[in-house]
Amino acid sequence: MVADPFALPFAPTSIGIGIYGYAGRMGRAVTEALAFAGAHLAGGADAADDPVALAHAADVLVDFSTASAVDAHLAAARAAGTPIVMGTTGLTPAQHAAIDVAAQEIAVLQTGNTSLGVTVLARLVREAAERLGADWDIEVVEMHHRHKVDAPSGTALILGEAAAAGRGSTLSELRVDGRVGLVGARSEGTIGLASLRGGSVIGDHGVIFAGEGERLELNHRADDRSLFARGAVKAALWLAAQPAGRYRMDDVLGL
Amino acid sequence: MVADPFALPFAPTSIGIGIYGYAGRMGRAVTEALAFAGAHLAGGADAADDPVALAHAADVLVDFSTASAVDAHLAAARAAGTPIVMGTTGLTPAQHAAIDVAAQEIAVLQTGNTSLGVTVLARLVREAAERLGADWDIEVVEMHHRHKVDAPSGTALILGEAAAAGRGSTLSELRVDGRVGLVGARSEGTIGLASLRGGSVIGDHGVIFAGEGERLELNHRADDRSLFARGAVKAALWLAAQPAGRYRMDDVLGL
Amino acid sequence: MVADPFALPFAPTSIGIGIYGYAGRMGRAVTEALAFAGAHLAGGADAADDPVALAHAADVLVDFSTASAVDAHLAAARAAGTPIVMGTTGLTPAQHAAIDVAAQEIAVLQTGNTSLGVTVLARLVREAAERLGADWDIEVVEMHHRHKVDAPSGTALILGEAAAAGRGSTLSELRVDGRVGLVGARSEGTIGLASLRGGSVIGDHGVIFAGEGERLELNHRADDRSLFARGAVKAALWLAAQPAGRYRMDDVLGL
Amino acid sequence: MVADPFALPFAPTSIGIGIYGYAGRMGRAVTEALAFAGAHLAGGADAADDPVALAHAADVLVDFSTASAVDAHLAAARAAGTPIVMGTTGLTPAQHAAIDVAAQEIAVLQTGNTSLGVTVLARLVREAAERLGADWDIEVVEMHHRHKVDAPSGTALILGEAAAAGRGSTLSELRVDGRVGLVGARSEGTIGLASLRGGSVIGDHGVIFAGEGERLELNHRADDRSLFARGAVKAALWLAAQPAGRYRMDDVLGL
Repeated sequence: MVADPFALPFAPTSIGIGIYGYAGRMGRAVTEALAFAGAHLAGGADAADDPVALAHAADVLVDFSTASAVDAHLAAARAAGTPIVMGTTGLTPAQHAAIDVAAQEIAVLQTGNTSLGVTVLARLVREAAERLGADWDIEVVEMHHRHKVDAPSGTALILGEAAAAGRGSTLSELRVDGRVGLVGARSEGTIGLASLRGGSVIGDHGVIFAGEGERLELNHRADDRSLFARGAVKAALWLAAQPAGRYRMDDVLGL
Repeated sequence: MVADPFALPFAPTSIGIGIYGYAGRMGRAVTEALAFAGAHLAGGADAADDPVALAHAADVLVDFSTASAVDAHLAAARAAGTPIVMGTTGLTPAQHAAIDVAAQEIAVLQTGNTSLGVTVLARLVREAAERLGADWDIEVVEMHHRHKVDAPSGTALILGEAAAAGRGSTLSELRVDGRVGLVGARSEGTIGLASLRGGSVIGDHGVIFAGEGERLELNHRADDRSLFARGAVKAALWLAAQPAGRYRMDDVLGL
Repeated sequence: MVADPFALPFAPTSIGIGIYGYAGRMGRAVTEALAFAGAHLAGGADAADDPVALAHAADVLVDFSTASAVDAHLAAARAAGTPIVMGTTGLTPAQHAAIDVAAQEIAVLQTGNTSLGVTVLARLVREAAERLGADWDIEVVEMHHRHKVDAPSGTALILGEAAAAGRGSTLSELRVDGRVGLVGARSEGTIGLASLRGGSVIGDHGVIFAGEGERLELNHRADDRSLFARGAVKAALWLAAQPAGRYRMDDVLGL
Repeated sequence: MVADPFALPFAPTSIGIGIYGYAGRMGRAVTEALAFAGAHLAGGADAADDPVALAHAADVLVDFSTASAVDAHLAAARAAGTPIVMGTTGLTPAQHAAIDVAAQEIAVLQTGNTSLGVTVLARLVREAAERLGADWDIEVVEMHHRHKVDAPSGTALILGEAAAAGRGSTLSELRVDGRVGLVGARSEGTIGLASLRGGSVIGDHGVIFAGEGERLELNHRADDRSLFARGAVKAALWLAAQPAGRYRMDDVLGL
């Protein structure tokens, strides 16, 4: 179904946001976040709904659906000429290529984490890695709830990638996972990753820069899932006013 | 050589401590720590020296030598009837058995960590594990300098063992190391271990108890290696007054 | 109004909990927590309702109302012979004295914090303060959301009191607040308190024991307000089976 | 006395560093740090020595003396045309004005903290304060050893100033110290400061940005005093090659 926007109170001049994955956990959280942001719900669509109708009804789209549904949503956005924030994770290289093509015609912001705090943190991590010499060792540690099935978290990888970029490299070249046993002394320039699991932790991330006699620790704590929804709405409001192109959360914050 | 105790200023009634592994890093640190503890150096011995002469000259012995030298030191202590603090790590099961035998005649305190803070922490960890139900997940994380070659640290294992004991089990049954990839949801009752490496960190340890909506974190930070020497001296002063038996750091603190 | 318990699904043999302050934030949270605990709602009462009717209808009572309403609730519990968990804060010495009197006839558990984690933490803090000598300095630091109007938090005071008790003293004798300016060197044996405020932090508390060259840090993080409700329900289920007497959260955990 | 540089082994083409406050704790630490940095000691001077002779003998000067001695050292550096790193704290506005005048003729780097980590941290704090909206509350917390007599630390003030600058303001306008009692809700835009004291902690600093549902924490830990000496030597080697002007640690790192 496409939700009826006229049933909701809103200023007629506010920005209308359409949500793909409307009935999902993040879709519902985004709907709740609209009220605090001066935006209104232009409509919502799930698997059984027509993505194109929603794309025409909305000023800007937000997608928190599934990787298999994303192609149709991107095509709909492009057909309607509507900007789209894509927060669905697990996209394939082919899907990323399709985003690049679509971004020649519409504004697309694709991201693995819509938190403003994590976006700023990734920026700070990159800058610290750049400024501190290679004799400062870098470790990334994260903690999530007991139900999370993969490790490290996607956000830990974003942070590790930011650190590697600050060193002029990529995470895949520098990465060291799960030290156990006689692992030997630490290799210079590597980036260690460690994952803790337990309880109901929404998501804590830390990046440690360990130098001779001193340490810099840059941490983010997510206390409430709604922060991701608020970040997505903030990104959507910003994206609605941008020309065609592919954007990142960094751009929303002017980083 | 056996250092000349008469060259050192001390009250004749103070306790005289003999040090095996006198020229090593820990031996020197113990010597420095004596001055602040109301004790004096009864003498020091290294590989080329006579361990029995030292054992007779001292009121209590402290051993920070090597696993291969420990047998002779223990035999000397037993022959002289002198209490001994054994802080050398990497002992074999046969050496532990020999300690049990010697402890029928002399007081022996054997430990993998002479820090008072770590000793108290291990006690608190055990108690927390006992009191908090099995629905509180336990994670142990440690960080050490970039030169450390093994993981996890011996102290992390002591803490994991304390947590397991609080659950009526052993660490080997509950232990989970180095999560990477699609590891699946956390198994109830397990204890996770993670090791970070970098810079010149002397030794940080944390035990996290993660429940539904809340977390308890018990951390220890070693800022200065001399704390291990001070703990050894404190243990030695206490041990000098004990009857034959095998003791642990817990006993020094009355835990 | 007194809520109709028969409208709710529950096993007839489960324990019925009556809630004073039913419409308040904590009252609603306790109601939600019942479902997961094998208990059912015997009824709820607010200012306009009859506390005595609720006390007769319930197997055990939970009070999260206001300090001015507590006298009537305690009297009702006593009249009906029903155990009561009192979580309302800001009680006067006269109210505490009335609790002592009532506890000669009914089971009363009064507490400033119903979190299981904080209860265990307070116990660990007391034990650490006892075991570590007076040359380990103690600092208590807490962080709460920007709307909190008082400092330090009640829980920080509970933890400071636990530390002082471990030293055989009281917090009022040892307490040092808000260092600013030329405060001079730290006085031995004092307990420092510091309060941070910001964002939406539900409640973080830390107790630091700082010795020569090492630190022990005992922290609690509340990630979700519902934990206080769950702790209250757990306490109520335990209290329902106790004889007359005045109890604390420690008793629930067998501490 | 002026130390005889010819008694020390060094490459004749290496940079010669002259130290004011040579016999002090920091002076000795700087001397030790030279060996690892490809520099040599051009000489050292204390209160009784001739500052001008040292200024002529050195390629670059480092001052860790006392505020009352700084005027003579600055004048000597200016007379000899020798760059100078000024790490002495507690300078008066008149002394800062004198530095501005001298900096028209020689290179002067004045700083309250020569740690590279703290310098990077201050930069990151400023950037985070700029990027995160005013609805993110800022708190600065520091911990130092029990002997420190003033609060907050000079470095905490540097970090608070950096945060205020990121908000387009100054710390004196936004600062809130030592919350105790009924302080009321947090005022938007303020920056809180809290100081912990205990044990032998060399210096820990943290800046917390607390938003709705998330937190960013930027921490620095000093594990070893020698890091300040190494930072001063690094600054001196950099300054030796700079034209006249007044510089900060930021400039050394290209920030």
